[in-house]
Amino acid sequence: MNPPSESPADIDRSDPESEVAARAAAYRNWGRWGHDDVLGTLNFIDAAKRREAAGLVRQGEVISLSQAFDTDGPQRGWRRRTNPVHTMTDTGVDAERGNQGFPHGIGGADDVIAMPLQCSTQWDGLGHIFDHGMAWNGRRAGDVVTSEGDLVTGIEHAAAAIVSRGVLLDVGAHLRPDDAELPDGYAISAAELDDCAAAQGVSVGRGDIVLVRTGRLARARREGWGEYAGGPSAGLSLTTAGWLHRSEIAAIATDTWGFEVRPNEFDAPSFQPLHQVVIPNIGLTIGEMWDLDALAVSCRARRRWDFLLSAPPLPITGAVGSPINPVAVF
Amino acid sequence: MNPPSESPADIDRSDPESEVAARAAAYRNWGRWGHDDVLGTLNFIDAAKRREAAGLVRQGEVISLSQAFDTDGPQRGWRRRTNPVHTMTDTGVDAERGNQGFPHGIGGADDVIAMPLQCSTQWDGLGHIFDHGMAWNGRRAGDVVTSEGDLVTGIEHAAAAIVSRGVLLDVGAHLRPDDAELPDGYAISAAELDDCAAAQGVSVGRGDIVLVRTGRLARARREGWGEYAGGPSAGLSLTTAGWLHRSEIAAIATDTWGFEVRPNEFDAPSFQPLHQVVIPNIGLTIGEMWDLDALAVSCRARRRWDFLLSAPPLPITGAVGSPINPVAVF
Amino acid sequence: MNPPSESPADIDRSDPESEVAARAAAYRNWGRWGHDDVLGTLNFIDAAKRREAAGLVRQGEVISLSQAFDTDGPQRGWRRRTNPVHTMTDTGVDAERGNQGFPHGIGGADDVIAMPLQCSTQWDGLGHIFDHGMAWNGRRAGDVVTSEGDLVTGIEHAAAAIVSRGVLLDVGAHLRPDDAELPDGYAISAAELDDCAAAQGVSVGRGDIVLVRTGRLARARREGWGEYAGGPSAGLSLTTAGWLHRSEIAAIATDTWGFEVRPNEFDAPSFQPLHQVVIPNIGLTIGEMWDLDALAVSCRARRRWDFLLSAPPLPITGAVGSPINPVAVF
Amino acid sequence: MNPPSESPADIDRSDPESEVAARAAAYRNWGRWGHDDVLGTLNFIDAAKRREAAGLVRQGEVISLSQAFDTDGPQRGWRRRTNPVHTMTDTGVDAERGNQGFPHGIGGADDVIAMPLQCSTQWDGLGHIFDHGMAWNGRRAGDVVTSEGDLVTGIEHAAAAIVSRGVLLDVGAHLRPDDAELPDGYAISAAELDDCAAAQGVSVGRGDIVLVRTGRLARARREGWGEYAGGPSAGLSLTTAGWLHRSEIAAIATDTWGFEVRPNEFDAPSFQPLHQVVIPNIGLTIGEMWDLDALAVSCRARRRWDFLLSAPPLPITGAVGSPINPVAVF
Repeated sequence: MNPPSESPADIDRSDPESEVAARAAAYRNWGRWGHDDVLGTLNFIDAAKRREAAGLVRQGEVISLSQAFDTDGPQRGWRRRTNPVHTMTDTGVDAERGNQGFPHGIGGADDVIAMPLQCSTQWDGLGHIFDHGMAWNGRRAGDVVTSEGDLVTGIEHAAAAIVSRGVLLDVGAHLRPDDAELPDGYAISAAELDDCAAAQGVSVGRGDIVLVRTGRLARARREGWGEYAGGPSAGLSLTTAGWLHRSEIAAIATDTWGFEVRPNEFDAPSFQPLHQVVIPNIGLTIGEMWDLDALAVSCRARRRWDFLLSAPPLPITGAVGSPINPVAVF
Repeated sequence: MNPPSESPADIDRSDPESEVAARAAAYRNWGRWGHDDVLGTLNFIDAAKRREAAGLVRQGEVISLSQAFDTDGPQRGWRRRTNPVHTMTDTGVDAERGNQGFPHGIGGADDVIAMPLQCSTQWDGLGHIFDHGMAWNGRRAGDVVTSEGDLVTGIEHAAAAIVSRGVLLDVGAHLRPDDAELPDGYAISAAELDDCAAAQGVSVGRGDIVLVRTGRLARARREGWGEYAGGPSAGLSLTTAGWLHRSEIAAIATDTWGFEVRPNEFDAPSFQPLHQVVIPNIGLTIGEMWDLDALAVSCRARRRWDFLLSAPPLPITGAVGSPINPVAVF
Repeated sequence: MNPPSESPADIDRSDPESEVAARAAAYRNWGRWGHDDVLGTLNFIDAAKRREAAGLVRQGEVISLSQAFDTDGPQRGWRRRTNPVHTMTDTGVDAERGNQGFPHGIGGADDVIAMPLQCSTQWDGLGHIFDHGMAWNGRRAGDVVTSEGDLVTGIEHAAAAIVSRGVLLDVGAHLRPDDAELPDGYAISAAELDDCAAAQGVSVGRGDIVLVRTGRLARARREGWGEYAGGPSAGLSLTTAGWLHRSEIAAIATDTWGFEVRPNEFDAPSFQPLHQVVIPNIGLTIGEMWDLDALAVSCRARRRWDFLLSAPPLPITGAVGSPINPVAVF
Repeated sequence: MNPPSESPADIDRSDPESEVAARAAAYRNWGRWGHDDVLGTLNFIDAAKRREAAGLVRQGEVISLSQAFDTDGPQRGWRRRTNPVHTMTDTGVDAERGNQGFPHGIGGADDVIAMPLQCSTQWDGLGHIFDHGMAWNGRRAGDVVTSEGDLVTGIEHAAAAIVSRGVLLDVGAHLRPDDAELPDGYAISAAELDDCAAAQGVSVGRGDIVLVRTGRLARARREGWGEYAGGPSAGLSLTTAGWLHRSEIAAIATDTWGFEVRPNEFDAPSFQPLHQVVIPNIGLTIGEMWDLDALAVSCRARRRWDFLLSAPPLPITGAVGSPINPVAVF
């Protein structure tokens, strides 16, 4: 069998089933880190990589890569994905009025949140996506994620895993120097990822966390959310699956809702085919809705595209994703 | 006026109002970073401190300092503080059964959480506590935190602030070599903090984030949660306020529910008097319910007590606290 | 002082403050049921009225007046008003797969909901609206509703109160025989309420619960939610406040989001002026987003417009509103 | 095959599987109301029964049978069953302080709730319990209740169904005249239900909703919640399944957490065997945690034990249960 094409033009737009299956078979990492593995490609981050990452800190500057977790966020309620609902159980207004019943003049404010774990800047855990009823590492999906949560690969297992070298690929600026924003539906190819890295003069290798900026969030910031969550967007082509596999990166994140190009690259009904290849088969952790705009400005100014990236998930027992505030340290 | 005593034995147990007021007046930092400040002592973290912190990374090892965010956590429902309620909106069981309606064999799992922001490992934001109706930097509490949230000092302002040098003070092990667990109600003094640092051979200074281990969580782990959330515990004495002020640390965190000693050091009705001094007056960010046990083991084995600490909050708009997964990198 | 006009044409559209204040003063019921009252006009429902209502049951038929509490409901997230988020903590798919760990073949499904209390068919409680900082019966708003909830007039006090004679006024059909739908912005006047009742041959009196159908929900059902929640709609004119007062009805409900006409009847900035008059001043309980369409069809067919109405709120401690499923029994 | 015994003493305490299976087979109503049925025994309520019920209203008095939906309710967090978390998104304290930004002096309070649907007074829907992977009417459990909710027998189908004649059986008072409270673990038999009805002079028949008072809630009210939710309690014996079937009642409710006796009547591991018989097999709707104490006092004073009962569920799409405020009208 020939290896799957890495050119978006070669996709058979009528046959997502085969296009997905070929890549799932070609890039499957099941068993690579043992039968009990719960981390997938996060295993590529080793101590040496972390030392390298820490060595990238020269100015002592920090940039947050998180969007605001905000009631006015991008979600529209699709599949019960609301924006965060943040409410107060005590406030300063109460404290000032003196109705809290506390002694010696102390007053307090407390708060509560209800939110989908994928409502804003986030990691997709390994239990987030299945391929024909199979989860990461060849487990049956129903053995992994029940109504109790992800019993096997819950995001809590990655609590100490996600500190590494980060590399920004500003594909938006690379391909569109004028406005640094790719058009909706633009499928980024493996060759373009390589070209962008080369143009920036940065390498990508084992254990790195790659951040791909498309400019989609910049547009939403300018024009309003519109269909940012779930609608059209530039993103990675299904044909990048090979690149994602052989580069041995630990994780990847984008400034878009769904990481891969939307609409997907098929005329037949399809939904997030690249997710289907990379999460359950490659074991790749994916970040979505990251804010890479300030980072891009900073990298360009510094002429440096790599940094220490610290992006640990909240260890929510059994979660298939986690809200995060990733920070890049220079 | 004499400076407030730093000896716990000197506290007038009948007069929390005066004991708090004296320390609030003595250590108040209002205006120190300008009238618009929203960060308080986090301002002590500068680029040099972060470079120093990154320089502490030698092995490339990471330790998570977060407890599990778990439905079986310590909360008892007091003041509507439940444990996280994590529910699935799609599961692997559904995917395997094929009821999700997705094409080409893709399946998915999604989840939702409802939780108090202070239910587990967390930062208290500057809007969390008030002193006689006043919030950090001399603002009226009711101008800062309304039912809409913290309109001024919301935790989102600290999104890029909390990466610094961390220093563990294992006071539990220092004072109780046998079991490394302080008894409930034990009020740690300023002198004991200094002694512990000296014994460990580590310095504490401007911009550091100090982690104080009491052993309270270790006991809960062994005996069950019991009253871990809100009940008796060792913790900092009210008389440490001066130490917390003059050390110019950026933040402090403990392995207990409430950071300060419980019951509080008064016979008269009292509630969290040290909070009342340090949050609205000093502008100190406080961490609670951190898991410092693995860190302590690691530090002891390395004979090193400082490390790179990355603990950015989730930038939840207007929140007065944030769940976090702090990581120590060696 | 002349009584306020009951003609919508007389409203001074530049002066909501005065138009509201005149009606608040004219119709204020404070003290009418004693200083401790927590029920307002619900006090008009007496035993005789309930016996009359039960006597209206002749066929033994029930019609639910509730919309579905549905994730695809009308809410858009404004002021954190989402649609209900209903999630499962156990499912039949799990039970069938046998992963629940229960003995002897029993399986179960459980569920959780998160929702604004005003997201769908509902009662507004007496603590829902204030007039210049004053709540129902002349209490200070801040003494009544704190972050702890409504400490005085919480909806739980009405748990056994809201069973009475219901009267439907199908104003939509009365004024628009062709399509039974009033246009957006149509302000229903007191005279039109009386005309509609007369045309239908039904009386309205003390203790009745009046249901006013505008046709707004029928249109949303046909065209999609659009701006059903918060947008333009027919509804009661501010000038009906006198009618609402002197009729001595116990409560009123409509098939619209906000009961009163939207946009409100002012050119100057305004927001729900009729609420401001009737809830804190008259003490009137208001129902919103009721489904009156099947009821209207049924009433017309029966040539009867009154019925037993049972619409008790959920006794949520301290709530300022409640989701309900009102039932009409014929 | 002999019919299953209706004497609690005959239960083989070592064999829940067989004891359940025998009763499931003997009393199964699958197909009785057609293959599409979604209401089960609620079908027994007909127009004549409702007319009879309305005819019971003589005094025009209403009693609520709902417990408070309260943050200090009975739940302990088991299986993510918390008490309701009710929070305010706007308050009177805010309104009085004038920070809401509304014109002409209007202020408002709004609120949000997060709660398990089975946290307090409730109906169990037909999708709540399964028997060996089968749901009501012989459907596969996984075809009925997925992560999307109950796609077939959701509680919304009963929106207009549950208004009928209610009959209180105060078994607590009948068997324990002194304190009207049955001891924990007391299994009420079919004979005792009949005896109680006879002693009270009330009949039970087709379409009635039977309310069984054990006194368990009265004790919790006196002693504190303790293990009210999930712990020991009097309740119906498994052997009442035949009575529940042949009486052709529409629904049943008790003042206990779980309707049937706790601990269950087996030495072998068991869990809610009567649920397993009556919900998926008989199609019986069950009410739990009703407050029957004021009702019992009232019935005894009136020497009348039947009344109009209105207890419609909230029509939450796909819910397997619903919080309710049932009202009895005399």
